[in-house]
Amino acid sequence: MTSPSSYRLPKEESVRLRRSLIGKNVQLFYKHEPLKIVRAHGQYMYDEQGTEYLDCLNNVAHVGHCHPHVVAAGSHQMSLLCTNNRFLHDNILLVSQKLRETLPKELCVFYFVNSGSEANDLAMRLARAHTGAIDTICLDHAYHGHVISQIDVSPYKFNNTGGAGKPEDTHVAPVPDAYRGIFRDMDHVGEDLAALYASEVDKLIAGIHKKGRDVCAYIAESMQSCGGQVIPPKGYFQNVYNSVRKAGGVCIADEVQVGFGRVGKHMWSFQCDGVVPDIVTMGKPMGNGHPVACVATTQAIADSFSDQGMEYFNTCGGNPVSGAIALAVLEAIDNDHLLQNATQIGDYVMEKCRELQNKHYIIGDIRGRGMFLGIDLVKDRITREPDTLGTKYVVNRLREERVLLRSDGPFNNILKFKPPMCFNMKDADRMIATLDKIFTEIEDISTVHKYNADIEEREKYHFHPTSQISVKPTSKSKL
Amino acid sequence: MTSPSSYRLPKEESVRLRRSLIGKNVQLFYKHEPLKIVRAHGQYMYDEQGTEYLDCLNNVAHVGHCHPHVVAAGSHQMSLLCTNNRFLHDNILLVSQKLRETLPKELCVFYFVNSGSEANDLAMRLARAHTGAIDTICLDHAYHGHVISQIDVSPYKFNNTGGAGKPEDTHVAPVPDAYRGIFRDMDHVGEDLAALYASEVDKLIAGIHKKGRDVCAYIAESMQSCGGQVIPPKGYFQNVYNSVRKAGGVCIADEVQVGFGRVGKHMWSFQCDGVVPDIVTMGKPMGNGHPVACVATTQAIADSFSDQGMEYFNTCGGNPVSGAIALAVLEAIDNDHLLQNATQIGDYVMEKCRELQNKHYIIGDIRGRGMFLGIDLVKDRITREPDTLGTKYVVNRLREERVLLRSDGPFNNILKFKPPMCFNMKDADRMIATLDKIFTEIEDISTVHKYNADIEEREKYHFHPTSQISVKPTSKSKL
Repeated sequence: MTSPSSYRLPKEESVRLRRSLIGKNVQLFYKHEPLKIVRAHGQYMYDEQGTEYLDCLNNVAHVGHCHPHVVAAGSHQMSLLCTNNRFLHDNILLVSQKLRETLPKELCVFYFVNSGSEANDLAMRLARAHTGAIDTICLDHAYHGHVISQIDVSPYKFNNTGGAGKPEDTHVAPVPDAYRGIFRDMDHVGEDLAALYASEVDKLIAGIHKKGRDVCAYIAESMQSCGGQVIPPKGYFQNVYNSVRKAGGVCIADEVQVGFGRVGKHMWSFQCDGVVPDIVTMGKPMGNGHPVACVATTQAIADSFSDQGMEYFNTCGGNPVSGAIALAVLEAIDNDHLLQNATQIGDYVMEKCRELQNKHYIIGDIRGRGMFLGIDLVKDRITREPDTLGTKYVVNRLREERVLLRSDGPFNNILKFKPPMCFNMKDADRMIATLDKIFTEIEDISTVHKYNADIEEREKYHFHPTSQISVKPTSKSKL
Repeated sequence: MTSPSSYRLPKEESVRLRRSLIGKNVQLFYKHEPLKIVRAHGQYMYDEQGTEYLDCLNNVAHVGHCHPHVVAAGSHQMSLLCTNNRFLHDNILLVSQKLRETLPKELCVFYFVNSGSEANDLAMRLARAHTGAIDTICLDHAYHGHVISQIDVSPYKFNNTGGAGKPEDTHVAPVPDAYRGIFRDMDHVGEDLAALYASEVDKLIAGIHKKGRDVCAYIAESMQSCGGQVIPPKGYFQNVYNSVRKAGGVCIADEVQVGFGRVGKHMWSFQCDGVVPDIVTMGKPMGNGHPVACVATTQAIADSFSDQGMEYFNTCGGNPVSGAIALAVLEAIDNDHLLQNATQIGDYVMEKCRELQNKHYIIGDIRGRGMFLGIDLVKDRITREPDTLGTKYVVNRLREERVLLRSDGPFNNILKFKPPMCFNMKDADRMIATLDKIFTEIEDISTVHKYNADIEEREKYHFHPTSQISVKPTSKSKL
């Protein structure tokens, strides 16, 4: 099923080399028995033995792994020219033009970079140049990137293990999560949750002003990903954007994970909320795996940035290959009708999940838009106590059943569905049937405990500084 | 000469779109008449009319533009798999193995990222994790990247137009430049310039301690690029590394521009100085244009980083395509004997430049190693007053003669030679003959003034907010 050239080392040797050569905190999925993937196509991935996995998690492979149109465009351009954007080249312009068509007319100036982290870093530079301020408001549990400036506005990082805590000029607003946040639907029946959550941002703005400081920016994913697949209540962003702008700040929509049509009804997730950000950052799906990312902003903000007089140069940002690939991704989204598919399949999966919810007590909440869904697993539907151990069982059993779907959120109890956008009805049925089976198994709590204990035992054998190097054989794995 | 698919818009339209869609401070080369390059091969670039240019400046296209081995490896892998490194894959391991063979044995743990900026940002995170300190020493005029954390240690940025000045925890050491620095060979005959310049770092360390703070890191390019192609005096890095380590800091060698064999005699420029850094950052040449970069460090520093307990995840960093391309670049360096070529051609160009120096008064200094040379143009060989206007003339005339060679340094008077490493003897002769011709022209100062005035007039027609959109026809251009 795989050609010899597609893998070269025995898996045990790969594991050994990975442990010895790559930083230990660069983590693998399924640490107890990492997956060695050597080939992928569409929504399917294949390991070194040719075993097929259904991919429900790789939102980066947006139009499908190894999409032929994208591969052809990238390969062709690689053979023609790949140089920096100090030379005129059309690809960067054609991508900008096509992006501009999808965006509100105010967002008309583009900067090309290599990653979502670089995009958010640049967004912050733009915001600072425009406002002259530095104080930034972000959401709790947010993640905006791995560079120093972005860890500083990512509570997901600075408030967790190894984090240095909140910097003085970062201000953390509560996640506008109606199910699990500080204002819950069940406690505030009939109230305007959007206004309640937005008022928390107002408090932060007042606090910044009280210190004699100014507001630079409010940055948020239009739907929160790492934070637990959270959809803010309707009207939240409108309220917040009004407040932030009144305070002189700019509004940054981080669409690195949720853009490019994933929500189905719109190209950009912020469009679901009827707002127009001042800066939009784009990343992951943009290159279908290739490192290309982008910042779109208004003419006024772009002018503030260039009026500073400092050149912005990004060696590989928007090079002809990155441009060709991004253009091909945009074309594939159109050609393959992926927005329509996201809506159709997303709605179908949502409906099927609701049926599962009627059957399985563990499903506390299902939320999402298009092909971005979160399934919130609970021990108790009244208290909404997260079922972290149950989720761990589900994730690992899914993998044994050759379905790749993983969890996130502050309690690691949210299953996150964000597959390649070519995911189809048959795939949805397969995923749902597998979930149904595993949710049934989980009713026997002793099964869960025994299984998780075994996984934890096996995890010790991998990537632990003092452990044995060899891969411990497993009795449980069905592979 | 070029196929229709290789360019799509008339140049005037490209210029118009570039002005309207891309941030104005994302600058073009030759602003008065930008080059539209549509194809490149080896050390040659071709514009939309098929005109060939000799490329003496693209160090990123390290093994030659569109090197067939690199293109084939990238294309093949793109069609197989491109996903994140949370799955086991061999490419990232094979690249690490091959890099490890080229490095001192202490540098044995690798992290993969998408750009030199991301690499230096991560290097700083590693240094902070290891030392618990933040105060960093850099060189004057240094450039380490476009992200916020790197602008903070790049006087090239923070001390120039639009810069916010030196942050409190950054400490700037003088450039160890024996020709143009604070200690010059002519003023310190027989003295140990390496020790003199290193003692300036000692002073900074003492200053940090005096404030009750600790030293985090010393970061420097092994040869300074943007700062003006500076080769530090022999022994400088040994002295500095000793002092920094005695103070508890770590030593970061930025090899983003100067690594991968450019110096000819060694794979890494720091090896010329007989030092072993604690962290090495790699970028540009690593992907021959593709966004891939890397950080290599010691086991102890990697352990400090992972012991913090924070995962490091970089979505595209070290993905299978980036890995395949980096591996192919390393193989091409070997297969094409590019280190030997760098030494042979570099020595030849140096020799020919010395002959030019005997003939043309404007050449104050020539310095370099392998295919990294700087030609320092002066008005006066005694005072070493930089000839900025003369350099502007030379750069633009070279382009008219279809030779791409540009300038840098604080006074923009250093011609920087850093071509694709496949540059050959014939190319060298062509470049030298063209320089000879232009240096002869420049003897008539009125020619220079008239020419530069014309260029400046034409620059106004491009990328100026209030100017006409059309490309002004030129009488001077020979194209």
